[in-house]
Amino acid sequence: MKAPDYTPFILPGSGTIGMESITSLLKKGDNVLIISSGVFGDRWKSIFERYPVNYKLLRSAPGEIVNEDAIMEELEKKHYKMVTMTHVETSTGTRFPVKKIAEMIRNKTDIIVVDAVASAAAEELKVQDWGIDVCLTGSQKALASPPGAALLVLSPNAISHLSDNSVSGFYTNLNSWLKVMDNFENNKSGYFTTLPVHLIFSLEKSFELIKKETIEIRVQRHEMVASSIREGISKIGMEIMAKENCRSNTVTAMMLAGINMNDFLTYCIENGIEMATGIIPEFAGKYVRIGHMGWINENDAISTIAVIERALIKFGKPIDLGSGLNATQKYLVKFK
Amino acid sequence: MKAPDYTPFILPGSGTIGMESITSLLKKGDNVLIISSGVFGDRWKSIFERYPVNYKLLRSAPGEIVNEDAIMEELEKKHYKMVTMTHVETSTGTRFPVKKIAEMIRNKTDIIVVDAVASAAAEELKVQDWGIDVCLTGSQKALASPPGAALLVLSPNAISHLSDNSVSGFYTNLNSWLKVMDNFENNKSGYFTTLPVHLIFSLEKSFELIKKETIEIRVQRHEMVASSIREGISKIGMEIMAKENCRSNTVTAMMLAGINMNDFLTYCIENGIEMATGIIPEFAGKYVRIGHMGWINENDAISTIAVIERALIKFGKPIDLGSGLNATQKYLVKFK
Amino acid sequence: MKAPDYTPFILPGSGTIGMESITSLLKKGDNVLIISSGVFGDRWKSIFERYPVNYKLLRSAPGEIVNEDAIMEELEKKHYKMVTMTHVETSTGTRFPVKKIAEMIRNKTDIIVVDAVASAAAEELKVQDWGIDVCLTGSQKALASPPGAALLVLSPNAISHLSDNSVSGFYTNLNSWLKVMDNFENNKSGYFTTLPVHLIFSLEKSFELIKKETIEIRVQRHEMVASSIREGISKIGMEIMAKENCRSNTVTAMMLAGINMNDFLTYCIENGIEMATGIIPEFAGKYVRIGHMGWINENDAISTIAVIERALIKFGKPIDLGSGLNATQKYLVKFK
Amino acid sequence: MKAPDYTPFILPGSGTIGMESITSLLKKGDNVLIISSGVFGDRWKSIFERYPVNYKLLRSAPGEIVNEDAIMEELEKKHYKMVTMTHVETSTGTRFPVKKIAEMIRNKTDIIVVDAVASAAAEELKVQDWGIDVCLTGSQKALASPPGAALLVLSPNAISHLSDNSVSGFYTNLNSWLKVMDNFENNKSGYFTTLPVHLIFSLEKSFELIKKETIEIRVQRHEMVASSIREGISKIGMEIMAKENCRSNTVTAMMLAGINMNDFLTYCIENGIEMATGIIPEFAGKYVRIGHMGWINENDAISTIAVIERALIKFGKPIDLGSGLNATQKYLVKFK
Repeated sequence: MKAPDYTPFILPGSGTIGMESITSLLKKGDNVLIISSGVFGDRWKSIFERYPVNYKLLRSAPGEIVNEDAIMEELEKKHYKMVTMTHVETSTGTRFPVKKIAEMIRNKTDIIVVDAVASAAAEELKVQDWGIDVCLTGSQKALASPPGAALLVLSPNAISHLSDNSVSGFYTNLNSWLKVMDNFENNKSGYFTTLPVHLIFSLEKSFELIKKETIEIRVQRHEMVASSIREGISKIGMEIMAKENCRSNTVTAMMLAGINMNDFLTYCIENGIEMATGIIPEFAGKYVRIGHMGWINENDAISTIAVIERALIKFGKPIDLGSGLNATQKYLVKFK
Repeated sequence: MKAPDYTPFILPGSGTIGMESITSLLKKGDNVLIISSGVFGDRWKSIFERYPVNYKLLRSAPGEIVNEDAIMEELEKKHYKMVTMTHVETSTGTRFPVKKIAEMIRNKTDIIVVDAVASAAAEELKVQDWGIDVCLTGSQKALASPPGAALLVLSPNAISHLSDNSVSGFYTNLNSWLKVMDNFENNKSGYFTTLPVHLIFSLEKSFELIKKETIEIRVQRHEMVASSIREGISKIGMEIMAKENCRSNTVTAMMLAGINMNDFLTYCIENGIEMATGIIPEFAGKYVRIGHMGWINENDAISTIAVIERALIKFGKPIDLGSGLNATQKYLVKFK
Repeated sequence: MKAPDYTPFILPGSGTIGMESITSLLKKGDNVLIISSGVFGDRWKSIFERYPVNYKLLRSAPGEIVNEDAIMEELEKKHYKMVTMTHVETSTGTRFPVKKIAEMIRNKTDIIVVDAVASAAAEELKVQDWGIDVCLTGSQKALASPPGAALLVLSPNAISHLSDNSVSGFYTNLNSWLKVMDNFENNKSGYFTTLPVHLIFSLEKSFELIKKETIEIRVQRHEMVASSIREGISKIGMEIMAKENCRSNTVTAMMLAGINMNDFLTYCIENGIEMATGIIPEFAGKYVRIGHMGWINENDAISTIAVIERALIKFGKPIDLGSGLNATQKYLVKFK
Repeated sequence: MKAPDYTPFILPGSGTIGMESITSLLKKGDNVLIISSGVFGDRWKSIFERYPVNYKLLRSAPGEIVNEDAIMEELEKKHYKMVTMTHVETSTGTRFPVKKIAEMIRNKTDIIVVDAVASAAAEELKVQDWGIDVCLTGSQKALASPPGAALLVLSPNAISHLSDNSVSGFYTNLNSWLKVMDNFENNKSGYFTTLPVHLIFSLEKSFELIKKETIEIRVQRHEMVASSIREGISKIGMEIMAKENCRSNTVTAMMLAGINMNDFLTYCIENGIEMATGIIPEFAGKYVRIGHMGWINENDAISTIAVIERALIKFGKPIDLGSGLNATQKYLVKFK
């Protein structure tokens, strides 16, 4: 499933260790442009702050994405060795147009990095075709394995930037991991640090199941479920944080219109639907995030809308009970 | 969770081995009265046919239950050593009024046997209070463990009827199992045939979870889910086989109004909801059975109605899409 | 792995349910000859006692097997519709020469039944080549799945004896199971009683692993482990119940020479080796049974001898510590 | 199981991420003294090389430990903010006298760090009593959970050294993790990066089992198994790398006396005993490492010696077959 010339890496740790390992490609004083739509885009800044590199953060308002003119303008100002973007920004549920932007900036920078933690295996993502140098994800999102492994692929161009003179620390140093990964690809043993072997087995099964479903069908399924959930939410009059032109297949951020977030989340989980807290600082505690990725299906969509409706009634919102379900159902009936 | 004076048995096999083990209480020529509402009530007949006992079958029409007058009348005619009844008849989704009938016949027969395969841990069932002598179930129904163990409790009166002169075969002979079960209750080892040890662990966990939920809440939960499903089914105009006065908490039989059963079932399972074939001979292939027991919840109810609605549209029924969901949701919103 | 013309059956329950299901082949008044080397051979008698058939039991002394002359002599006396034999008698660790005897009696009886509960997948066993009509086993012995399923294969000749006029009860009636099994073989669904579905998956894996090892290597491995254990036991001066000419690959019964059986078993299990009680009435409590089947290997053999040596020292036997290990090791070193 | 004033941390990743997180306690230009007995001691050097701190490496010969005079002498020369030591050096099987050295240097340095990856839960280790500031381990060694989590405890003194001005990167920054861990200890939720939740459940079980065994018995068990293995190895004439005064409870490095390492390891794993390659550069490929930690017991010891003996015979060593087993068995018989 990887582009033939790309080198895959598996690092023990969460998706963030995959992000931080990109420091292996940077040298002291390098310029990095960060395109951020929220908390996980901003995380690149928090990472680069700990290293002797120069970064510039372009950040959209919550629910929006950075304007492409602003990106091009910034790239005209000076040379950036690396540009990072976040395919799906989990904190707001937005999707960044990676294909379009990667093509636009391909000749303006040396290394294009895409954080696909919340998108890989659920959004269209053609790493080699789109000219991406580094693409990274985590085991526990749309790949649907337990958490504990970061996965990356590096283009030959990205590999050529690896060196022991990078700003990277020890554990994150992809130059040290490279030989181990090469060995694994050649059915030889290798050791740098202990890998989470049980996750390797789990990921093997995940990839087997993804191949069986096919990535195209899988992306369509995620899109159908995501859209059906948003049909229901909109129909009952709740606001979705992400603008219509940039909504992801994997996360929907729903504004709470004054309902207490913890009360709402507690009601939902007691009714079998676990959602996540709203974490973008501008609206912290004012919204919830609905994750819909992995083996999510129509029944999950319907159940989620049903629980949201009942929760809203419980917390005093004068909604038309059943109207959200009706909208979700009408959306779904078109498919089968 | 058992009445203190009752003796519990666990037999390796399906629920049917529990039924057949009742032959351990019968001697050649004994009279047995079978009260049947369908296929699994009739199974008692199929069992007793293989043994030198006399049986009389009282059988209701599908979706109904045997009239109490007919039972009393039969018991006046001659002495029956044993009366068997099926608490929930899985083939039709009916519930038999075990409490009322057991009280009525308590002094008219020696041994009252209740098949609680599809009811134990999901319907109100007070074995000792109601004067039941033998109550049996299977591991894989509302107890929510894998299949492979039949569970029974016998009253002291039932135990007194055990003997080596019964008509029972070898494996089903509760008189042989008795010593083993007594040993287990006294923390001693015992052997008659090999028990499915993994199921013992699983059942231990099931009982722990049931105790934690409490049996009262568990029965209420099953009733809520069952009722909400039937609200939806009725609203979209589909017929339920069981009459209103005898609908169970655990199974709903829905008539298919001309839709091909296999097509319908295939659609449903491809959409994540597995139902069972309709098996009562009078309507074989003309209905489906929806099981709602174990860790079933509101989300399962909503998902089931959603899939039924979409299936009906697909197979050409002119239903009001969303109306069933609306009815189920309106029922559920009253609870929380 | 089955002979092409044979019909396989899987019944929910322990191995004993497989034994009792043989009553499906018998009619009232049929003669059965039982060849028994111990408790599980005698179990056939306990089963047939519950049915209106005539049985004759030929029983060897513990540790021995029934003399072939005695068998032939009995078969001359009258016509036996069925002859049963126990391939490995678990209570004594003896192996019966099924191949030789089956060939000898093939034309003297109608149905040859072999209880292979403790031998299938660990001893040489060629059901069709040897002219066996019914061969049965359990999921939890050398097949190495959990307990809960009895497996049988029936020859076309055996199938021809199935009828609804047999003496069988309901659950054990192979004539009722036959249609279900035929359906399964043709990838169709079927129902008689609920099957332990988790065990079907487990057995599928067991058979996959057995095929991968190959049955020939698997039998050799069992023989090597069994022989190496017996080398150690003999060297330290303990008596093995089974005579040298009839020792099985799967069970070794070791006499305790006066040591308290429960003390001995407790010591062993606390040291990581679980053995079983000695159960043949003639020597009950005077010996232990060491099971060595499934994924047993050289390390299990060595560990077992080590624990036995230390147990014997603990309980005051003046053995030469290490001599048993030495003998087992010397046996094993020849193989690799 | 932790000292009450210490703060526990769980980081997603291997044990090495726990080591590298110690950079959270260091500022630019700080002096660190590394006491190393081998590869994993040297790993501190490889880590610190990536950061702007000054380190001094004291390294023993393989199989030995750094002389205490050399340590004291070095600490007289200049002030070291931090001293690191490796409790059990996995590459050589040596145990460092942490208690003694920690007491000696307690007033000569600010922060004492102990790498207990291969010792925690298998060697005596009293973090608070011995004045250790930071003690770290991994989930997959003697704790016996799968790999994927680094565990640390920090003394109040160590906590006081945490700051955002440390040389640490982002993911390893214990100052960022601190709030999350404090929340967890107060039953509140927290997020910095995604934790491997399945490992948290696994570790909970590990700690439950360790408490049940008691840490004292657990350490004794490891010592017994380790000693019994070494008795066997020595008796058959093989050399153990670690000197007698510094042998660990968890790892034994055995010299191969000319046998090809890969051939030896392949033979052993095919016989059910997995060992690790010898990795210390001075003797790379000339020895193997036997890990004996977690739920290791006497049977593992016996099996290991048996396989080693047979391997040596196979590869042409003229050993006295059985003599190693005899020595191991004689050692073990003393205990029970």
